[in-house]
Amino acid sequence: MQQLEKKIPVAVLGAAGTVGQRFVELLADHPWFTLTALSGSERSAGERYADTCNWKGEASIPAEAAEMVVQPLGNTYDAEIIFSALPSEVAKEIEPDLAAAGYAVCSNASAYRDVPDVPLLIPEINPGHLVLIDYQRERRGWKGFIVTSPNCAATGIALPLKPLDDAFGLEKTYIFTMQAISGAGYPGIPALDIVNNVYPYIGGEDEKVARETRLLLGKVGAEGKEPHPMAATAQVNRVNVIDGHTARLGIELRDKAGVDEVYAVMEAFNQTEANLRLPSSPAKILHLFRENGRPQPRLDSRRDKGMAISVGQVRPCDIFDIQMTTLVHNTMRGAAGGAILNAELLVAKGLVA
Amino acid sequence: MQQLEKKIPVAVLGAAGTVGQRFVELLADHPWFTLTALSGSERSAGERYADTCNWKGEASIPAEAAEMVVQPLGNTYDAEIIFSALPSEVAKEIEPDLAAAGYAVCSNASAYRDVPDVPLLIPEINPGHLVLIDYQRERRGWKGFIVTSPNCAATGIALPLKPLDDAFGLEKTYIFTMQAISGAGYPGIPALDIVNNVYPYIGGEDEKVARETRLLLGKVGAEGKEPHPMAATAQVNRVNVIDGHTARLGIELRDKAGVDEVYAVMEAFNQTEANLRLPSSPAKILHLFRENGRPQPRLDSRRDKGMAISVGQVRPCDIFDIQMTTLVHNTMRGAAGGAILNAELLVAKGLVA
Amino acid sequence: MQQLEKKIPVAVLGAAGTVGQRFVELLADHPWFTLTALSGSERSAGERYADTCNWKGEASIPAEAAEMVVQPLGNTYDAEIIFSALPSEVAKEIEPDLAAAGYAVCSNASAYRDVPDVPLLIPEINPGHLVLIDYQRERRGWKGFIVTSPNCAATGIALPLKPLDDAFGLEKTYIFTMQAISGAGYPGIPALDIVNNVYPYIGGEDEKVARETRLLLGKVGAEGKEPHPMAATAQVNRVNVIDGHTARLGIELRDKAGVDEVYAVMEAFNQTEANLRLPSSPAKILHLFRENGRPQPRLDSRRDKGMAISVGQVRPCDIFDIQMTTLVHNTMRGAAGGAILNAELLVAKGLVA
Amino acid sequence: MQQLEKKIPVAVLGAAGTVGQRFVELLADHPWFTLTALSGSERSAGERYADTCNWKGEASIPAEAAEMVVQPLGNTYDAEIIFSALPSEVAKEIEPDLAAAGYAVCSNASAYRDVPDVPLLIPEINPGHLVLIDYQRERRGWKGFIVTSPNCAATGIALPLKPLDDAFGLEKTYIFTMQAISGAGYPGIPALDIVNNVYPYIGGEDEKVARETRLLLGKVGAEGKEPHPMAATAQVNRVNVIDGHTARLGIELRDKAGVDEVYAVMEAFNQTEANLRLPSSPAKILHLFRENGRPQPRLDSRRDKGMAISVGQVRPCDIFDIQMTTLVHNTMRGAAGGAILNAELLVAKGLVA
Repeated sequence: MQQLEKKIPVAVLGAAGTVGQRFVELLADHPWFTLTALSGSERSAGERYADTCNWKGEASIPAEAAEMVVQPLGNTYDAEIIFSALPSEVAKEIEPDLAAAGYAVCSNASAYRDVPDVPLLIPEINPGHLVLIDYQRERRGWKGFIVTSPNCAATGIALPLKPLDDAFGLEKTYIFTMQAISGAGYPGIPALDIVNNVYPYIGGEDEKVARETRLLLGKVGAEGKEPHPMAATAQVNRVNVIDGHTARLGIELRDKAGVDEVYAVMEAFNQTEANLRLPSSPAKILHLFRENGRPQPRLDSRRDKGMAISVGQVRPCDIFDIQMTTLVHNTMRGAAGGAILNAELLVAKGLVA
Repeated sequence: MQQLEKKIPVAVLGAAGTVGQRFVELLADHPWFTLTALSGSERSAGERYADTCNWKGEASIPAEAAEMVVQPLGNTYDAEIIFSALPSEVAKEIEPDLAAAGYAVCSNASAYRDVPDVPLLIPEINPGHLVLIDYQRERRGWKGFIVTSPNCAATGIALPLKPLDDAFGLEKTYIFTMQAISGAGYPGIPALDIVNNVYPYIGGEDEKVARETRLLLGKVGAEGKEPHPMAATAQVNRVNVIDGHTARLGIELRDKAGVDEVYAVMEAFNQTEANLRLPSSPAKILHLFRENGRPQPRLDSRRDKGMAISVGQVRPCDIFDIQMTTLVHNTMRGAAGGAILNAELLVAKGLVA
Repeated sequence: MQQLEKKIPVAVLGAAGTVGQRFVELLADHPWFTLTALSGSERSAGERYADTCNWKGEASIPAEAAEMVVQPLGNTYDAEIIFSALPSEVAKEIEPDLAAAGYAVCSNASAYRDVPDVPLLIPEINPGHLVLIDYQRERRGWKGFIVTSPNCAATGIALPLKPLDDAFGLEKTYIFTMQAISGAGYPGIPALDIVNNVYPYIGGEDEKVARETRLLLGKVGAEGKEPHPMAATAQVNRVNVIDGHTARLGIELRDKAGVDEVYAVMEAFNQTEANLRLPSSPAKILHLFRENGRPQPRLDSRRDKGMAISVGQVRPCDIFDIQMTTLVHNTMRGAAGGAILNAELLVAKGLVA
Repeated sequence: MQQLEKKIPVAVLGAAGTVGQRFVELLADHPWFTLTALSGSERSAGERYADTCNWKGEASIPAEAAEMVVQPLGNTYDAEIIFSALPSEVAKEIEPDLAAAGYAVCSNASAYRDVPDVPLLIPEINPGHLVLIDYQRERRGWKGFIVTSPNCAATGIALPLKPLDDAFGLEKTYIFTMQAISGAGYPGIPALDIVNNVYPYIGGEDEKVARETRLLLGKVGAEGKEPHPMAATAQVNRVNVIDGHTARLGIELRDKAGVDEVYAVMEAFNQTEANLRLPSSPAKILHLFRENGRPQPRLDSRRDKGMAISVGQVRPCDIFDIQMTTLVHNTMRGAAGGAILNAELLVAKGLVA
C-alpha cells in the first residue's frame, strides 16, 4: 500500500448521526487521513463532540475525536477532503458551496447522486467515472468537486453484478431486499414497527435501489453518466436485523452462463486490478459461498471489516437465467467505509493533493 | 351457516406438534366437529394429553383435550375424519392405510400433495378437484380417501393469484418469501440462527412453493391434477417473525391489467361464491390494503382468526406487469385452519356422512 | 353479570396513542359503555378517526370508531365517563377541569396518582379507596371526580402481593422488571436501542414502580391515601418483547410462610369476593403456574383477554423469604383494560349514574 | 508484555461447539500459544475441522485450524495445555485422566468447579487460589492439574464485587440476570422460546451463579477453597440478546459506602496490580459508566475484545446499601477468553513450562 508523506486533513459533516459516527470511527487510525474538523447541528456547535453525539459504536469513541469541538455547518474547514453525512436536503444546499470553495466533497448523501456530471462511485466498479470531475469543474466553475457514494443496498448488488455484466451482459435484474434497521439511522424505525415483524416498504427506496444499480454499471457519455440499459426493479423490505442488507436477485444474461461460470467470473474479479489495494480495500471484494444458507447478515456482514460483499446460492432460475444472494454491511461498505474508499481512490489518482 | 344434526367425530394425529396443537385449539368449540381421539409419539401414548404436549398456545389448553389419553399411532380411531399433522415420512406410511380403512383423511403433511389423484385443496380456489376422490377410490380400492392441504407459503400466494388468473391469465410469477419461525415447528430453528439475522434458505421449500402454487391453480385432466402452465420460481427466506409468511410477487399477465383492475378483481373475489361461508371461512377471503407498508405480519396475520389473506402494495412492475405483497398466517390458514376448512367443504359436499 | 338498562356514554381522550387505541378496541362491544366521543391532537381534530390514528391493532379498527370525527381537547363531551390516555403534562391541566364539570374521569395518566385524595385503584385490591371520592368533591368543590389507574408494572406486582400481605404481612419487596416495548407507546423506543439488546433504564420508572406498589397496598387515613409501610425498591429494564411486563420479586414476610402456603393464599384469592365479576374481570385474577419456566410474556400475557396476572416460580429465598415471578399485559390490565375495569366498579358501586 | 522464547503447544477439546469455536478463534494469533490439536465428537474424528464444525464465527475460520484433522477424544495430545470446552458429563470422565497424564487442563466445563482442591480462577480476583494445584497433585498423585474457569454470569458479577469486598466487606448480594442466548450453545434455545419473549428460567443456573460468585470471592482454607460468607441469591433469565449477560445487583456492605466511594474503589481496581497485563488482559478490567442506561449488551459487551466487564448505574438502595448493573461478554471473558487468560496466568507463574 502506498505511503503518503503527510496525512491529509479531513472533515466530517453530520458527525453525530449513525453514518457520521462510523466516519469518525473509521478515520481514527487512518493511514492517509487525519480528522481535523467535525460539524454537527446548530444546537451542538461549540460543544465537545463526546458530549453531544450520543455515541452508539461498539468500540469506545476515539479519544481525539471525543475532545474535538463541534463546528457549526459552514463553508470553511481546516481540511482538504470533506466527508458529508448530511441529510439530503441540507447536503443539497451546502455541498455545491464547498465544492466551489475548492474542497473535495465525498458525499454519502443522495442529493447529487442522480446528477449527470457528478460521479456515483465505487472504486472497483467505475473508477473511470472520475472523468466527470473535469466536466463538473468546467461547467460549474468549481475549484473543488463532489463525488457521491451510492445507496447502501445498491452497493451490495452492483458489486457482484459487475463481473457478470463484463462477462455475459446483463439484460434484466429483479431485486428483492431485506434491509437492516441501522440503514434508517437513529432514532430511525420505532421498535414497535419492526420487532416480531417485517416492514415491506421504505419510502423511495425501491426506485433508488434499481436506479443506482443501473447508474453504477452504466457508462459516461456526452451528457454525463448514463444508466445501464438493463431492466431493473426492486421490492425492498425492512427486517429485524441490526446491520447487513441482504438481496436476492433474479438475473437474465445476454450470453447464457451456468452456475459454475458465474462463480468463476466472480472469483476472477477478486484477482484482477479491480481490487485497487487501497487502505480500506477488502482482501477479497467478494466472499463467495457454495453452500446453502449463506450469506447471513449476522455471520457474514463484518467480513474484511465490513468492506467485502458476501455472495452465495448462485443457482439456475426458472424465469430468468441465474439467481443469487448478496450481502453488504450497510453502514460500512454501504456508507462511511464506501465514501472513505472513494476518497482514497481520489488520492491514489492524484485528484487530491 | 349450515347446522348439522349431530357433530362429526374427528381425530388428530401428531397432536403434540406445533400444527397438532393448533388443530386441538381450533376444534375445541367447533360447530360441526367433536374431537374424540388424539394420537402422538410412542413415548406419549397412554399419557394425559396435557402432560405430554408441552402446550405452546397463547390460550390455555382446551379443558376436554387436556384430559384425553394420547393413543398410539394406529389404524383405528373412533372418528370419521382424521386430521393428520404427522411428519411427512410417517404420513407416507399410515395415511393410505387409514384411507383404505374408510376414513376421510385431511392431511397437512406433504407426503401425498404431489400425487396426481390426491386433491391439493383450498376451498376457495379448486373445490372442483374433489372429483379426484372418485378416481382415488376406484384406482386404489379405498373405502375412504386422502385430501391434502398445501404448503403454508403457497396458500398465501395462490389465493390472491386465483382471481387474477381467472380474469387476466397468469404467465409468470416470481416469488420471494419471508417466512415465520413457527413454520419450522418446535423446537424448529435455533435462536442463534435467526435472532438478529435472516436465514436465506429452507430445504426444499423453493421448489415446494413454486410447484404447489402451480398445482393449486391447475386443472384436473385425464391423469389427475395438472399444474398451471405459468412459469414460477421462488426464493424463500426465514426471518425473525413468530407467525405470518409474507410474499412479494412479480406477476406477468396474459391480458394486461392495471393496478385498479387488479384490486377490483380481488375485491370481487370476496363477493363471489368463492367464499363458501363454511364455519371456518373468513368474512373476507382477501383483506386488501391500498396504503404503502401493508400488510405486516404482526399487525395483519391474525385477521379473521388467521383465515384471511392480506394483500397490498399492488403496483406496476418494470420487468413484469404487476407486483404485489401478500401475507398468510402460516399455522392457521396455512396449516391447521386450512385443513379444517377442507374438512368442512367435504361435509358441505356430502363427502363425509 | 349485572345488566344495565341503558349503556353509559363514554369519551376517550388521547385516542390515537397506543393506550388510546386499546381503549377504542375494548369499548367497541362493551356491554355497559358506548363510545360517543374521541379526542386527539389539535392537528387531527375534525378528521375521521380512521384517517388520523395510524391504527396499530391486530384486529381491524372498530367500524363505528373509524367513522367518528376527532374532537379537539376541551371541557365538554357528550359522555358521563371520560377515559384519559393523555400525556401526563396535558392530563395535569385538563383532568381537574373535567372533574369540576361533573365528569367521572378514569385516568391512565400518572399526573394525579400520587395526590392523597385521588384513588389509585385496582378493583380487586383496594375498592375501599373509593371513599376518597367524597373527600375530593368536598375539598375541591368538584361535581365529578378523578380516579387513576396505576403504572402497568406496579399493577402486575401489587395484585399477587395483595393476598400475601393479607395473610402474612409484607416487610420488604425487592423488584426487578423486564418490561415490554409497547409500554413506551408509539413511536416509543427506537429499534436500534432494543433489538439484540437490553435497555437497563426507564426514566423515573424505578421510583414509580416501588411507590405505586406501596400505594396500592396501602390504607386511607385522615390525610388521604397512605403507602404500605414495607420497604420496596425496583430495578427496571426494557427488553425486546412487544407486550407483557415480567417481574421477579424477592419478598420478606412478617409471618413466615412456605411455598405451598403462598400458592394456597393466591389460589384462595381467586375464589373470594376480590373477584367482582365485572364485565372486564378475568375468570381468574391470578393464573398460577407450578412448573419452572413460566410465566412467559409470549405465551401467558393474553390470558383472560389480558386481564389476568400470571404468577409462577414461587420459591424459598436465601436472602428474604420467598421469590416469585409475575406477568401483566401492560396495555390491557396494565393500562386501558385496567381503567375500564375501574369504570365498571364505579358503575357497580353507583358512583356513576 | 512478557515474550516467550517458544510458543506453547495447546489443544482444544470440544472444538466444534460454541465455546470451542471461540477458543479456536482466540488462539489463532496468540502470542504465547500455538494450536496443535483439536478434538471433537466421534462422528467428526478424522475429518477436516472446517468440514465438521459448522463454523458460526463472525470472522472467517482461521486458516490453520480449518485444515487440522479432528482427533477422537483421548488421553494423548501433542500439547502442554488442554483447553476443555467439553460437556460437563464428558469432562467429568476425561479431565482427571488428562491431569494425571501431566497436562495442564484449563477447563470451561462445570464438572470440577465445586471440588475443594480445584481452583475456580479469575486472575484479577483470586490468583492466590493457584496454591490448590500443589494440594491437587499431592492428594491425587497427578503429574498435571485442573484449573477451572467459572460460570459466565458469575464472572461478570464477581469481578466488580471484588474491589467492593476488599474495601467495604460484602454482607449480601441479590442477583438478577438477563442472559444471552449464546450462553446456551448451539443449537441451544429454540427461537420459538425466546423471540418476542423472556424465558425466566435456566436449569440449575440460579444456584450456580450464587455459589460460584461466593467461591470466587472466597478463601483457601485447610480443606481447600471456601465460599465467601456473604448471603447470595440469584434469579436468572434468558432474554433475546445474542451475546452479553447483564446483571442487576442489590448489595449490602459491612462498612457503609456511598455511590462515589464505590465508583472510586472500582476505578482504583483498574490501576492496581490486579490487572496482570497478560496477553489477553483487558486494558481496563472494569469499564465504568456514570450515565443512566448503561451498560447495554449490544453497545458494551465487546469492549477490550470482550475481556472487560462494564459496570454502571451505581445507586443507593432502599433495601440494601447499593445497587449496580454489570455486563460480561459470556463467550469471551465468560468462557473461552477467561480460560485462556487463566492459562496465561499459569505460564506467567511458571506453572506451565
